[in-house]
Amino acid sequence: DQRSLLLAATLVLDAKSGRNLTFRTEEEYIRSYINYHKVYLRYGLYFFILLDLALALFEKPALPGASVPYWGTMLIEVVCIAFFILRVLHAMKFQEPKIFWKDTKNYMVIGTIVLTVIDMIAYIVWINVAPDTHPVRWSRPLRVLFIINFSDGKQIRRAFRNIRRTVPDILNVLILFMLSVCLFALLAFKLFYKRPNLIYANGDPYFKSYGDAVWDLYVLVTTANNPDVMMPAYNYTAWYAIFFIIYLVICLYIFMSIVLAAIYNNYKKNLKNEVKSAVYSKRQKLIKAFGIVKVDMNGKEAVTPNRWKQLMSVVLPTKSAEQIDLLNKVLDTNGDSYIYRAEFLNLSDLLHVELTEVKDRQTLLEKLMPTIYRSTCSNFLQMIVRHKIFRYAFDLLIFANAFFIGFDVDSADWFFLTIFSLEILLKLYVFGPKQFFQRLWNMFDFFVIGGAVIASLVEFIIGDTISEEFNMLDTLLVLRVLRLFKLFGSIKRFKIVIQTIVNIGPSIVTYGGVIFVFYYFFAIIGMEIFQGLIKDFGYNENDTDVSHLWCGNPKLKDTTFYRLKYCKNNFDDIIKAFVLMFELSVVNQWHDILGGVF
Amino acid sequence: DQRSLLLAATLVLDAKSGRNLTFRTEEEYIRSYINYHKVYLRYGLYFFILLDLALALFEKPALPGASVPYWGTMLIEVVCIAFFILRVLHAMKFQEPKIFWKDTKNYMVIGTIVLTVIDMIAYIVWINVAPDTHPVRWSRPLRVLFIINFSDGKQIRRAFRNIRRTVPDILNVLILFMLSVCLFALLAFKLFYKRPNLIYANGDPYFKSYGDAVWDLYVLVTTANNPDVMMPAYNYTAWYAIFFIIYLVICLYIFMSIVLAAIYNNYKKNLKNEVKSAVYSKRQKLIKAFGIVKVDMNGKEAVTPNRWKQLMSVVLPTKSAEQIDLLNKVLDTNGDSYIYRAEFLNLSDLLHVELTEVKDRQTLLEKLMPTIYRSTCSNFLQMIVRHKIFRYAFDLLIFANAFFIGFDVDSADWFFLTIFSLEILLKLYVFGPKQFFQRLWNMFDFFVIGGAVIASLVEFIIGDTISEEFNMLDTLLVLRVLRLFKLFGSIKRFKIVIQTIVNIGPSIVTYGGVIFVFYYFFAIIGMEIFQGLIKDFGYNENDTDVSHLWCGNPKLKDTTFYRLKYCKNNFDDIIKAFVLMFELSVVNQWHDILGGVF
Ligand code: NA
Repeated sequence: DQRSLLLAATLVLDAKSGRNLTFRTEEEYIRSYINYHKVYLRYGLYFFILLDLALALFEKPALPGASVPYWGTMLIEVVCIAFFILRVLHAMKFQEPKIFWKDTKNYMVIGTIVLTVIDMIAYIVWINVAPDTHPVRWSRPLRVLFIINFSDGKQIRRAFRNIRRTVPDILNVLILFMLSVCLFALLAFKLFYKRPNLIYANGDPYFKSYGDAVWDLYVLVTTANNPDVMMPAYNYTAWYAIFFIIYLVICLYIFMSIVLAAIYNNYKKNLKNEVKSAVYSKRQKLIKAFGIVKVDMNGKEAVTPNRWKQLMSVVLPTKSAEQIDLLNKVLDTNGDSYIYRAEFLNLSDLLHVELTEVKDRQTLLEKLMPTIYRSTCSNFLQMIVRHKIFRYAFDLLIFANAFFIGFDVDSADWFFLTIFSLEILLKLYVFGPKQFFQRLWNMFDFFVIGGAVIASLVEFIIGDTISEEFNMLDTLLVLRVLRLFKLFGSIKRFKIVIQTIVNIGPSIVTYGGVIFVFYYFFAIIGMEIFQGLIKDFGYNENDTDVSHLWCGNPKLKDTTFYRLKYCKNNFDDIIKAFVLMFELSVVNQWHDILGGVF
Repeated sequence: DQRSLLLAATLVLDAKSGRNLTFRTEEEYIRSYINYHKVYLRYGLYFFILLDLALALFEKPALPGASVPYWGTMLIEVVCIAFFILRVLHAMKFQEPKIFWKDTKNYMVIGTIVLTVIDMIAYIVWINVAPDTHPVRWSRPLRVLFIINFSDGKQIRRAFRNIRRTVPDILNVLILFMLSVCLFALLAFKLFYKRPNLIYANGDPYFKSYGDAVWDLYVLVTTANNPDVMMPAYNYTAWYAIFFIIYLVICLYIFMSIVLAAIYNNYKKNLKNEVKSAVYSKRQKLIKAFGIVKVDMNGKEAVTPNRWKQLMSVVLPTKSAEQIDLLNKVLDTNGDSYIYRAEFLNLSDLLHVELTEVKDRQTLLEKLMPTIYRSTCSNFLQMIVRHKIFRYAFDLLIFANAFFIGFDVDSADWFFLTIFSLEILLKLYVFGPKQFFQRLWNMFDFFVIGGAVIASLVEFIIGDTISEEFNMLDTLLVLRVLRLFKLFGSIKRFKIVIQTIVNIGPSIVTYGGVIFVFYYFFAIIGMEIFQGLIKDFGYNENDTDVSHLWCGNPKLKDTTFYRLKYCKNNFDDIIKAFVLMFELSVVNQWHDILGGVF
């Protein structure tokens, strides 16, 4: 019947996409579940999460010139929250209450929503009653929880789960590492604190308290204050250098390697288990689907050709009868058109294989104007474009372009832009858009050249400068140099390396998402705590306003922070906060940056 | 006969120790080969290599106060070289000339010897004819080649061979990485060089030439100038920060990870091949030895019990007949006392198993004074020392000791030293020296407490100060804090981590040897080129000698190098050069250190 067919098809699709939600099996709830995964609802969720996160750009402390009254951002936030509530209610509808209320994810989402609503109301009251007491929107860091806890953020949630599971595994190594640093610090403290003439080059006290010693040696293990932390002692006597060398060999090279190896191995182990359980759950879904559509054939269970067609017409509504028949033939190993259990279990992998019909392979132009496309002239053109000499010629042109860019001959640029645009048009004509955009380099080419054409036109029409800080010539320049990166794609020996990078792309994106969650969380907290402490007034020597000196904070007088012109490394808007977080992540000079903030 | 027995025994020992030299099979040559591996000749070689390398301490530029006339070090070098020549002649004697002259190692050693002799003669002529023209002993960096190319430096040679084999494998990644840096540098150069108001915080030009751009971005990829290299552009407009962030994400995080992964994987692959071929050659040697001693037994080949005894009496001359019989029983699987081929192939692994007889397990005291050792009183003492409460009590004492050290109560130290010495004596009495020193922590304990006892006595007798720079109280302090590290050994959760570190110990030592080879090679070259350029006169403000300012080099006026008091980071003796190399290896600030040297 209709219901069981729908159920089986949904299970097959769940197995294909690796979805893991459970749902009640009445038709009404199945349909609700199918709707829940509708593309527009999923992208709607992504959009509202992004919108919610983007509010930080406009809330105080906002980007310069982007400040909006609090009720403006709050109105948008209400809309986002409303969508989230609808989404949760939708999920509640098709799930068994027992299962829904057993899932931590749901508690996290509902909790975050409740806290946000409380915070918003509290803030409105607070800002109207006592606006001078620096009202705080304390729920804002929690917004990133929506990324992790809505069921669509599967990859990032998995990464977080792995991190959570990896921490206890490496705890022993970490504790031992910390204790070693503390013991070495005790040694350094005892050795150096009694010598009054040991001071840092800038006059700072040198290992004068145990806390300082632990901090300095911890910074050393990140290499950030090497060799400065050693120099005073080394200048006193070369013997003391031995201490620092032994410390670095043990705590940086040996210990850090073991910590990293432990993290790597445990993370890999946890990831393996995740993959295993994903494969298992996929299998379970297919077995369940098979159980629904199978027919008992003299003791052997199988899906009949007829039921196959019914099932597939729900799973793949856009495919033709021939294609569905083809899938049957691929799965069927003994040629009787019946799909047995073992064969059925390959279905989810098969659904990932792209099937195209011959008529799909024709380009759009070929379909629209077959006579012109297949004329002698057009055929000759196609032969040229497909020839490898055509490719070599354009590689050579990029190479020539590199020289023109290197020697600043801008006048030739129109020529190169025209010829490269022509290349793209020719390839589009010959290969058709579908085949053209399947290659990543073509996509890259299209955006770089297309962008350059648009930027050139804008520059030609409305002139160079759009604003003082952002101008078209810079953009053009960037696009022009980016073009040169295409050379890498045409050199054979680099292909495998580039392919590797492309293959690990999804992992990098997931990892980037994890980093984003951390950055956003701490950026918002940092903004609430540190806003206004350090201000960026530039370093104009003609500026006579005393309050503009030393990043607007007299405490920063004579610090490395001010001397290195780090004033812009502050928490005064979310962009600056993110850049600051990134600088800290690169580890170098992090102690000096932090020294300014605190 | 005697010859074939000797040959078979030598092959077995070669298989056991993983030695790979070939030798002629006449008895004279076998004996010569056996002599070649005599312990005193091997350690003699180590000693003379070390002595040869240590000459750098006394040759110009020598350690302060350790300068020796050139003929003094040269005399010692002549002795070292003479030993090396004897060693080579010895190896030539027992090897087939064809095989000897096919081995690159031998060419390297002979070449190094010849070059060194030529250099020594040339130097003597040079220094006597034109002593003012800065005569150069150019062969000195080659001394490290003795470490790698004498057949005893197997582990380090293997590491170098692996590095050599890994380089071509990762060449593509490296080239692509370098090209990316160069292209990003082109982009940065084009973006920034036209803006005259972009300068570094210290006034240095900012991306004003393409070479500068490549250098600055290369330094950035080592993180050493982050975020300083970004700050001028970022202060100009936040848009420029995007460039640096993208650059770091691509070239540091993605590319560097791939480079490191490629190095790691290829190195592992090469190491695996090495181990495989070592196992193969071990097997071949045992097969050859079996072929010599085997007897044909009704078509089955085996080693008779009699031949086994003969063979083993040559292989293990110190073991008793019972032990040799026991080995036979272990190898023999079917109980007929005949060793068949497959059984014989396990011999080399079996020889690595330590065999002790019951009488070996008795402590020395038990053997000397059995009645006292086994008296009721002594038995009671043994029970106490073996009890876990004894261990806990001393762990507690170390913990108490930590507090006394932390709060600077030095008066209690005699108490702790006495009680910990007593602990060691008791353990030595109960377990005997052999069992005691088998545990690494006991060894550690023995040296730390023993050292502290000696240092305390020295301090008590001749007073605190031996020299201005090195004093007994510091040594005592170090030993006292080291004692605390023993706590780690007694905490159960850390045991597996510490065991891991102990297990990878040999690899760390090999890796250390490789690093030493590089350091020594470049340190000597650096000393020849850069000696005297930077001098360390200290930073005494009362020093009115103008030539002592700015590390004795006016070029260093107003540089970061001088401001950070880096003068001692120079090439004026080999110790300073090594410390400098180590600082550069830790990567941080390396560009500033190099900026001073050049
Ligand atoms: Na660094």
